Parts: sequence; structure tokens; C-alpha cells
Amino acid sequence: MSKARLEAFSDGVIAILITIMVLELRVPHGADWAALSPIAPTFFSYVLSFVFLGIYWSNHHHMLQLTTRINGAILWANLHLLFWLSIVSFATAWMGENHFAQVPTAIYGCVLLASAIAYTILQQTIIAEQGPGSRLKAAVGNDLKGKLSGLLYAIAIPLAFVNHQGIAEAIYVAVALIWLVPDRRIENHIKANARSSAGAAGALEDNAH
Amino acid sequence: MSKARLEAFSDGVIAILITIMVLELRVPHGADWAALSPIAPTFFSYVLSFVFLGIYWSNHHHMLQLTTRINGAILWANLHLLFWLSIVSFATAWMGENHFAQVPTAIYGCVLLASAIAYTILQQTIIAEQGPGSRLKAAVGNDLKGKLSGLLYAIAIPLAFVNHQGIAEAIYVAVALIWLVPDRRIENHIKANARSSAGAAGALEDNAH
Amino acid sequence: MSKARLEAFSDGVIAILITIMVLELRVPHGADWAALSPIAPTFFSYVLSFVFLGIYWSNHHHMLQLTTRINGAILWANLHLLFWLSIVSFATAWMGENHFAQVPTAIYGCVLLASAIAYTILQQTIIAEQGPGSRLKAAVGNDLKGKLSGLLYAIAIPLAFVNHQGIAEAIYVAVALIWLVPDRRIENHIKANARSSAGAAGALEDNAH
Amino acid sequence: MSKARLEAFSDGVIAILITIMVLELRVPHGADWAALSPIAPTFFSYVLSFVFLGIYWSNHHHMLQLTTRINGAILWANLHLLFWLSIVSFATAWMGENHFAQVPTAIYGCVLLASAIAYTILQQTIIAEQGPGSRLKAAVGNDLKGKLSGLLYAIAIPLAFVNHQGIAEAIYVAVALIWLVPDRRIENHIKANARSSAGAAGALEDNAH
Repeated sequence: MSKARLEAFSDGVIAILITIMVLELRVPHGADWAALSPIAPTFFSYVLSFVFLGIYWSNHHHMLQLTTRINGAILWANLHLLFWLSIVSFATAWMGENHFAQVPTAIYGCVLLASAIAYTILQQTIIAEQGPGSRLKAAVGNDLKGKLSGLLYAIAIPLAFVNHQGIAEAIYVAVALIWLVPDRRIENHIKANARSSAGAAGALEDNAH
Repeated sequence: MSKARLEAFSDGVIAILITIMVLELRVPHGADWAALSPIAPTFFSYVLSFVFLGIYWSNHHHMLQLTTRINGAILWANLHLLFWLSIVSFATAWMGENHFAQVPTAIYGCVLLASAIAYTILQQTIIAEQGPGSRLKAAVGNDLKGKLSGLLYAIAIPLAFVNHQGIAEAIYVAVALIWLVPDRRIENHIKANARSSAGAAGALEDNAH
Repeated sequence: MSKARLEAFSDGVIAILITIMVLELRVPHGADWAALSPIAPTFFSYVLSFVFLGIYWSNHHHMLQLTTRINGAILWANLHLLFWLSIVSFATAWMGENHFAQVPTAIYGCVLLASAIAYTILQQTIIAEQGPGSRLKAAVGNDLKGKLSGLLYAIAIPLAFVNHQGIAEAIYVAVALIWLVPDRRIENHIKANARSSAGAAGALEDNAH
Repeated sequence: MSKARLEAFSDGVIAILITIMVLELRVPHGADWAALSPIAPTFFSYVLSFVFLGIYWSNHHHMLQLTTRINGAILWANLHLLFWLSIVSFATAWMGENHFAQVPTAIYGCVLLASAIAYTILQQTIIAEQGPGSRLKAAVGNDLKGKLSGLLYAIAIPLAFVNHQGIAEAIYVAVALIWLVPDRRIENHIKANARSSAGAAGALEDNAH
């Protein structure tokens, strides 16, 4: 099974998700500066979710560069990830419209955690398909960032209740920043690979798309 | 006529359909746990329809891997399928907002049945274009799953009226589960084909996209 | 300039337009059969516009198969066509919600006429770029269908006012039927071409996408 | 890292943005000519933003034709551009619904200015990646149009307050017209390049997509 259509479909869904969130930025009724202030929290949550979806798209892009074969399990693990990402726009709007109230802030963290778990499942499914000597496994290593993100979400969700929910928001922003620092592992792996096997079929294939 | 644009267009439409359904998950007015309970039925129907559209995308993907030529009839049979799939989001929202009332539950089944019939028409149109020795026909065989799904929908639709509509819902879930079990027929056919004609033009073509 | 991105962008826009129209099919408030009857005119106009957009996508697909080079004029003529197609969803909803009242029915015809003119401009721009010996010009011939459609729209628009608007609707349906009869001109031209120059660079290029 | 997925993702997002703006053209309640007049300002701002997004798509298309390698910085500079473009639909609707009131007209200019800055950052990031002898740098030259656009926006934004906002609108239209005049620099550069190195790897690569 080819990976091109899986990439195209995932790109399409993520492009739509990142874009339709802006439909939740309701046009204010007034036409003065004061009319903008009630939508400030919605705008902030839009920016945060835009960055998260951008991170997922970028990481998904990198991961599929090290993937050549797709089977049914990978296809459904990918749809499972897209499902949780599709809920992000709902959680974003609910959190923004309620000015970061406790329950919506916790639910937002739950959706981010579920997306992170779905991403890990997809990663493991691809590694399992590649078998011993998996290129993705070598590139991902111990997946420190992935584990740290999951841990931080798990800490942030209860903190939305027992403390001021600003702490939970700050942790969500921190996770985004961790990922914005470019992940050079896969890029380096590709470069090293290309150097050691220049002209080989594997490297050409990576560049073919 | 090339199949790449047909694939890209179908992927685009299905990606949009699977995503805009989330716009029907209206953001609740309150900010507590109680505010979530009225949207639970809408959420359940969203999940169900997400799975159905995922199945259609996956099967469509497989079917087109065994298709090389597209003619006008295939193009319109494909648009006919996309039309019924586009109605799924409407039926999903109507059923969810009315907490699985009788008429919306029956209409939802009718839209699923019409989509299944449209898929079968598309399949037959491709087989007819391929003529004797059709690769798709060999892979599909007697299409037991397709026939069983149609039969189950035809049973579920009247049961939405004469009994508790929970039975109809359970049958819809059962059909989804039948398809989630991966359909190895086409995958096996491709593998067998690739093995028997390794390096041949047909196999290369399948991998080209 | 390459045509692949122009095709991909046009496919994306048309896929979105054909899909978001379904968002105008508002979910009825009741849950019985009677609740469906007020949306019947919206449903009918949705079906009509779905078919029109399908025809435009299919014809656009054919036209670009005979196009190899894109310049700035073609790019903007294409965006101009997409602009009018984007207004179709607005006109569809307005006509449907007002049960085919006179002004919305006439405006709908105007948008279809503007789309047809924009399509002809795009076609002429491509023919002009190809210069003498244009493959597209040879395939299109005297463009009888295009001229007939324009004439029929021009007749239908005033008839929406001076007579019962059902006549205008019937003419719109007639134009759709004219185009649903598959347009074999371009398909035949490609086949003839492929036969006469099998293995030549031009034919390979057509199949490359 | 390959540029094809970056192109596809950007095309997808811009296609969605240019299309969902039409959802803000609310269907009028009446069915006569008078019902159309309140949406005239929204229609005008829709046309203006459609042209702006078309210009960005066209320029983005040209710029990526001179780009071969993508790194993390380019990927995020591109997402940053898409972020500001995504706000255009919000600013368009706010300006249109308030009949070009002062604050929305100024905010619309700010979003256009931010998009122009984001585009320049993306351009500089690609030039930096290409290093000395950058093909994009040679094609862009002193970027007169880009600098002029920024200057005009910076003039228009305060004029929305101190004068009649029609002046600001006129400047926005003027900027669009500056760009609608086709930008032959990159087209000429590609032609010149193709002529001087016909058959070379670089030229083939440009045509490969």
C-alpha cells in the first residue's frame, strides 16, 4: 500500500482543522476597540491550538519520511490520531469562550493528552511494521520529548482544578515550546543515512516526494 | 484519463466531510461537567460517522489501487458516492441532536444504505471498464461483506420504528465493526500479484503513487 | 510554470465548495417526517449545484489534460472561474431557503452564466498560450455545448420574472443534463493522439500525473 | 526534507481560507433586490480578500519553484504566514459587516501588513538556507513591490482614523492592483535559467512537479 495517499489525506484533514478553528473566532457585534476584548481569550486559544496542530503536522511529516510501507493497522492508527486532532477545535472554542474556566481547561488538556497517546500508538505501529532494524526506531531513540509531553499534560490536567487554571495553561504553552525547538533527530538521521548510502534506493525514495 | 486527480479530489472531499462534522458539535453554553451531557449523543454519532467515513476512505483507497483507467462513467459513479457521503454529516447531526429519535435514526440508515449502493455501483463500473480478466473483480470475489452490510441496513431501518431504536443503532455499530476487521482480500491480491510478476509494469505502477 | 499545483489548488477549492454547501442544509428542529418538508427546496438546490460543480470539475480536469504550460494570465483566469464558483453556494442557499422565489432564481442563473463565461475565458486563455496548432482548440472545436449553455442561461434569467420561475429551474436542469451526457471530444482526441504517437514524450507526460 | 508536502499543505490551507470566507456572506432573509443591499459591503470585502489570497497563493507558488530544500525554519516561517492569512477571513467579515467602520478597516490593514511581513520573513529564511548564490535572491532582487506594499499599508492604517476610511480602502485596492500586474521577475529568471542550463538537473527538477 502506498504512503502518498495517506500523506495527502492527513495533510488535507490537518489543513482543514487548522483553518476551520478560525470560524470559531466569531465576528464581534460592535465596531470599536472594546468589541475586540471579549474575543481575546478565544484568540489566545486559537493561537495555541494553531501551534499545536502545526507541531503535529511537522512531526507527522518527519515520521512519514522514514516510512515506506503502509498496512491496515497504520492506516487506522493514523485515523485515530486525526480523530483526536479533530476534537481540538471543539475544545479550543469551549475553553476560549469560557475564559479558561476549570472544566474546559482540563478537557483541553485531556484532548492534547489523547492526541499525544494516539501519536505514540501510530509511531509504535510503524516501528512494528518495519521490524528489526527499523529506521524510525533508530531516529526516534528513547522518545524523551514524547514522554515528557505526556507527563506534563498529566500534571496540568488536575492542576486546572486544585489551583488557578493559569498554571495548566502555562504548562500547555511550555509543551508547545519544547516542540518548537526543532527536532533535529530525524533530520540528522536522514542526513547521516544519505551520506552513508548516497545514491542508494532508500535515499532516493525519500527525496522522491 | 488519469486516476491521480480522481484520487486527490475524492481524498479532498472525504477529508472535508470527516472534518466539518465536528462543526456540528456545538460548543456548550455552560462551563461545567453538566454542560457536556447534552452533547453526548451528538458526540457518539460523530464517532460513528467518523468511523464510517474512515472505512469508505480506506476501501476507496484499496479499490483505486486496482484501477488504472478512469472513464466518464467511473468519474460520475464516484461523484454519486461522494454525494451520499456528503449527506452523512447532515444525517449525523439530525440524529445526534434529537437523541436517536425514530425518524432521524431511520434516515441515517437510509443514507448509509444509499452510500453502500453507490459504492457497489462504482465498483461495478470499474469492473465493467476493466472487462474480462478484471483485477478488481478477482480481488473482490463475491463481495460478501458488501452484501451483508446492505442486508443489515435494510433490516435496521424498519426496526428504528417497530422497536426501540437502540437496536437499529446496534446494527449500525455492527456493520462498522465488520469493516474495521481489515479487508485482506485486496492486500493479498496485490501481494500475490507482485510476487508472481515482480518487476513487471503492473506492479511498478501500483507503487508509483 | 507547472500545472500540477494549479490542478491541486483548483481541486482543493472545488472539493471544498461542493462540500460546504451541505452546511447550508440546516438540521431541522423537529424529529418527524414533517420536519423534513421545509428543507426539501434547499435539498433540491443542493443536488442541482452539486451536479453543476461536478460538471465544472470534470470539464476542468479534461481541459487541463490538454494543457502543459501555465502562465500568469491562465493562473488568474482560473482564479476568476473559482471566484464565481465560490458564489454558487451562496446563490444555492438563497434560492433554496426562499423556495425558488423570483429574484434568487434569477441571481442563481446569473452566477451560473458568470461561471460559464469565466470558464470560456479560461479556455481561450489556454488556447492563446498554446498558439497555432493548439491541442485544446482542436479538441474543443466550435464549443457548441458551451455556447448553447450560455444562450439557455440568458433565456432563463428573464423568464424567472415574466413567467413562473419553474420554467427557469427547468432550463437550469436541462443545461446540467446537456453536460452530463459525457463529452467524448477530449477523450477521443487524447485516444487518437496516444495511438498516433504511442511512446512519444507528449503522451507520457499526460499519464505522468 | 521535501517541498512537495509543504506545497500541498499550503495549497490546502489557502484553498480552504479563500473558500470559507464565502460562509461569512450570510444568506439574506428577504427574497427581493432590497435584501441584497445590506450584504454589498461584505461582498466587496470578500472580493478584495479573494484577490489578496489569490496573490499570496500565486507568489507562494512562484517562490517555491525556486526552492529545493526545506528545513525546520522554513517550515515554521511558512506556518507563520498561513497563520496571518487565516486571520484575513475574520478581518474581512468584521470590516464588511460594519460597513468599513474605522477600527475594523484599520485592523484589516494590520492583518494585511502582518501577512506581508510574514511573507518577507519566509522569503528571507529561504534565501538564508540557499546561502550565497541563492537563486531566489537573484530573482527577487531589491523586492521593490514588497517594500512598497508594506509602506502603503503603514500609511493606510492611520488614515483609517484621521480621515475618511475610504482612503484606506482605496490604498488596499491599489496594493492589490500593484500585484495583479504579473510579476515577471521569477518567470523570466526561470526561463533564462532553463535556457542557459537546458537539460541540467536543476531545470528538470523544477518541471518534475
